[in-house]
Amino acid sequence: MPTAEKATTAKRGAGRPRTAVLSRERIVEAALDLIDEVGAETFSVNLLAARLGVRPSSLYNHIAGKDDLLAAVQEVITDAIDSTMFETQPWANAVAGWARSYREAFIGHPHAIPLFATSPVAGAIRTMEMYERVVHGFERAGWPLPRIIPAIVALECFILGSAMDAVAPPDLFHPGDAAEHVPTLAAAFAAQDRGNGARTESDFAFQTGLAAMIAGLADGDPTPEGRQAPTRK
Amino acid sequence: MPTAEKATTAKRGAGRPRTAVLSRERIVEAALDLIDEVGAETFSVNLLAARLGVRPSSLYNHIAGKDDLLAAVQEVITDAIDSTMFETQPWANAVAGWARSYREAFIGHPHAIPLFATSPVAGAIRTMEMYERVVHGFERAGWPLPRIIPAIVALECFILGSAMDAVAPPDLFHPGDAAEHVPTLAAAFAAQDRGNGARTESDFAFQTGLAAMIAGLADGDPTPEGRQAPTRK
Repeated sequence: MPTAEKATTAKRGAGRPRTAVLSRERIVEAALDLIDEVGAETFSVNLLAARLGVRPSSLYNHIAGKDDLLAAVQEVITDAIDSTMFETQPWANAVAGWARSYREAFIGHPHAIPLFATSPVAGAIRTMEMYERVVHGFERAGWPLPRIIPAIVALECFILGSAMDAVAPPDLFHPGDAAEHVPTLAAAFAAQDRGNGARTESDFAFQTGLAAMIAGLADGDPTPEGRQAPTRK
Repeated sequence: MPTAEKATTAKRGAGRPRTAVLSRERIVEAALDLIDEVGAETFSVNLLAARLGVRPSSLYNHIAGKDDLLAAVQEVITDAIDSTMFETQPWANAVAGWARSYREAFIGHPHAIPLFATSPVAGAIRTMEMYERVVHGFERAGWPLPRIIPAIVALECFILGSAMDAVAPPDLFHPGDAAEHVPTLAAAFAAQDRGNGARTESDFAFQTGLAAMIAGLADGDPTPEGRQAPTRK
């Protein structure tokens, strides 16, 4: 490990903490930890440097800048998402398995959700490799190329929203002492199906929505002008 | 700003100063502005007091605490969501109109999305009134009571995820200079249907997913064990 140390110290001279050996991998891990802790908005390269006990300039020996760092964080999260089922399973099963794994990956990193939802994939090679596999799975299942990205984006909106819901406190719909004021909501809350197989009510809502979305996507014209679609208001 | 201080102590007295008069309404508006600016994680009552130029104790003359304040913020956002269509339109049309209005309401307040997704409705009367209307619309359409909340939660996961996507920069799937490494993704990105009627690619993905989810929810057994559903991995 002292080699990594030396690589960065070469420029800056002595006196840096013994423990903070810098490497790209360690910086990226620390960045994800920091995002988990303070949120993506508060996160900055300067704050990360302070956390690691180094000067910001030391980090730039390992990362090209904030965008590069965030792309690397995207990759680390992507590593936890299994997309191999797109190579082996029928489309609906593959989508379901991928969606479950994807949601699980973010349950541990809820503060990274808005970041992931709004970050370009360019630069995040392993993230692009995941999408390559997913798009290919859609294509093999007969999806017309122009419709694949919108369908994947729609699924991701649902998956990331579900990951946010999964970390919410339970019983969000409990009407508290207002039950008499909102009797229908209160009755629906009390009668709510929490699912036999599901671990939590959030898991059950996720399964409900996932099955619906997969069936709906598989089923027909995926535009609102389609057969089962609502009219615009 | 000692005048504002005075206004709070006197509560509703006459001759209030022209600027920075504290009222519950003004505090709630300022709270939403601050959340928009710094994010829900960084938001605190102390920071809000500093922003308003008053002591935190002055705010507590108008709000019971942070939970009360956040419930009031929820209500203000809810006010922008139209749910009246559940009283007049068929279920699928009502869900579609509500979902569009719901997503629009959050596009202006992306930092409030994680907050809304994880906040109990208790205390937010106007938010509960919205759900009362929505649940009642499901019930009138013949939905069994136990299935209503999971379906609403699933829709909200999709809507809030879509609102996050709507504020993302365009072309997130542009593979940059890696197109040769991920040729299928690159081809799908280039061929991507952006929708004729949709304003943006994000709008089109939202319409795709919304139509799919409504069709899927309407269609059948909303559990993954249902007819069109995938098997577990």
